[in-house]
Amino acid sequence: MPLSAVSQSTNHDFPERLRRVADLVEARLDALLPKPAGHQAVIFEAARYAALGGGKRLRPFLTVETARMLGGPMDAALTVGCALECLHVYSLVHDDLPCMDDDDLRRGKPTVHKAYDEAIGVLAGDALLTQSFEILSEADLSADVRVTVISELAKSGGMSGMIGGQVVDITVAEGERDEALITELQAMKTGALIDYAVKAGGYVAGASYTELEALSAYARDMGLAFQIQDDILDVTGDAETVGKAVGKDADLGKATFVSILGLNGARDRAKALGVQAKNHLEPWGASAQTLRQTVDFVLEREH
Amino acid sequence: MPLSAVSQSTNHDFPERLRRVADLVEARLDALLPKPAGHQAVIFEAARYAALGGGKRLRPFLTVETARMLGGPMDAALTVGCALECLHVYSLVHDDLPCMDDDDLRRGKPTVHKAYDEAIGVLAGDALLTQSFEILSEADLSADVRVTVISELAKSGGMSGMIGGQVVDITVAEGERDEALITELQAMKTGALIDYAVKAGGYVAGASYTELEALSAYARDMGLAFQIQDDILDVTGDAETVGKAVGKDADLGKATFVSILGLNGARDRAKALGVQAKNHLEPWGASAQTLRQTVDFVLEREH
Repeated sequence: MPLSAVSQSTNHDFPERLRRVADLVEARLDALLPKPAGHQAVIFEAARYAALGGGKRLRPFLTVETARMLGGPMDAALTVGCALECLHVYSLVHDDLPCMDDDDLRRGKPTVHKAYDEAIGVLAGDALLTQSFEILSEADLSADVRVTVISELAKSGGMSGMIGGQVVDITVAEGERDEALITELQAMKTGALIDYAVKAGGYVAGASYTELEALSAYARDMGLAFQIQDDILDVTGDAETVGKAVGKDADLGKATFVSILGLNGARDRAKALGVQAKNHLEPWGASAQTLRQTVDFVLEREH
Repeated sequence: MPLSAVSQSTNHDFPERLRRVADLVEARLDALLPKPAGHQAVIFEAARYAALGGGKRLRPFLTVETARMLGGPMDAALTVGCALECLHVYSLVHDDLPCMDDDDLRRGKPTVHKAYDEAIGVLAGDALLTQSFEILSEADLSADVRVTVISELAKSGGMSGMIGGQVVDITVAEGERDEALITELQAMKTGALIDYAVKAGGYVAGASYTELEALSAYARDMGLAFQIQDDILDVTGDAETVGKAVGKDADLGKATFVSILGLNGARDRAKALGVQAKNHLEPWGASAQTLRQTVDFVLEREH
């Protein structure tokens, strides 16, 4: 199923659309990630093991659907989304390491350091991070746009973005975590890449500054709703459906949106953020339908 | 001492020139690396701890001196060299981790995971790797050249370059290591970044394909000589002068150029590579003097 076919689809069966784009992401990642070769074949295998065969591919979906809404080049958007997915996957591989969250299960299969070993876990993450910039540097876009998507990805994934959020998460003591702190933490740890996912679709499509501001506001509200739903699933979900260990935060006595706002309070907050997120899409009217449905999906998802 | 002053220097006191460029690299890195701020201040500190205050800065020196030889923009060359140095430093931080080489000492001070902890060691490496691409994306160069230096750095630092070499080093059994294997290993692990260092100076200066080929041949010969000298120092040096643990390879019974070629054989091989490296600089005549002296420095260095 080529991108154009998804593009021409007239029905708005959201799960089907998400699945189709996920299939395209899988195929493109398979093409973009080098095949195992040489004495270092194991690192290509480990990178492919981590990146292929799983995940909702929500971030590349957002890039592709934002570009589609704006009439941008779909094939380049898919490539940029895949670069972002590589960066996202590297962060999961490193977060799962014994010195971090020490997780054995990810997307329903053993984590990289479990399937291989810890050194390969570190190096496979490094490789995927590096690969994400290589992919962007070779995307079918003008040099100016390539520089923009590279620069913004580095900022979103860096010390003031995703890495910064992870550092806050592992270093700030429980007693110091109030709602403001965990909101700031999540805006960096999860929010920065969701923000990038949407804006990247805008960059690819040549969006104006005003459009990018509205897209970013949409993404930030949805990103926070996404994290609140994550906290809810950690309490209400089961490991098999969620695809990773659950109940960890509660077991650790960690401050989450649920522990601070209560389960119903967290649900209400997520719902309100969802409404707010959709409001930012008003300029695009009916063509924003898929991005609106994405908000509902994020709020209703069970994994 | 601004770059222009170094540029106008008429005497060819190599150690002084190396030291002056190292000072410029230090100052530029200090400016390029964000100052600690926010709840994640520790990660900015750790990145700065790793990147500042040490090292010969040989890679950025090569970028700067190659650009100088070719009449390229010096300030941009310095920035590109600093991005490369960030990537080099990240690789040291991750190589030092307990699950890899497990080193306590680097550039004469405690390694990052010793000074902080293992999680910060992983994340500081991730941050420096990410930062290197951010720096390149914002360099004072045309978008086309920025894309080139980004693409080539990703390749040099990736699974077919530096990371690939590290994987071969930690996974290939001793019994399978002959001269061909350790040459291939080092061409990736150490050589790829030295190759990039020189070529980056060429990209910045708009070098022709033929010029880049000659520069790369120079870099590859010197890179191998550099590694052979490293193996020699591991046998003949003392930890205080070298600035890191020595004798490790021999203690581990590891195949090195010294164990395969013998000490004198290794010295002869390094010397021959040095002559060959200089031959590739013939097109540039007298203006290649500093790059020639760099070969001598690499062969004569004691740390």
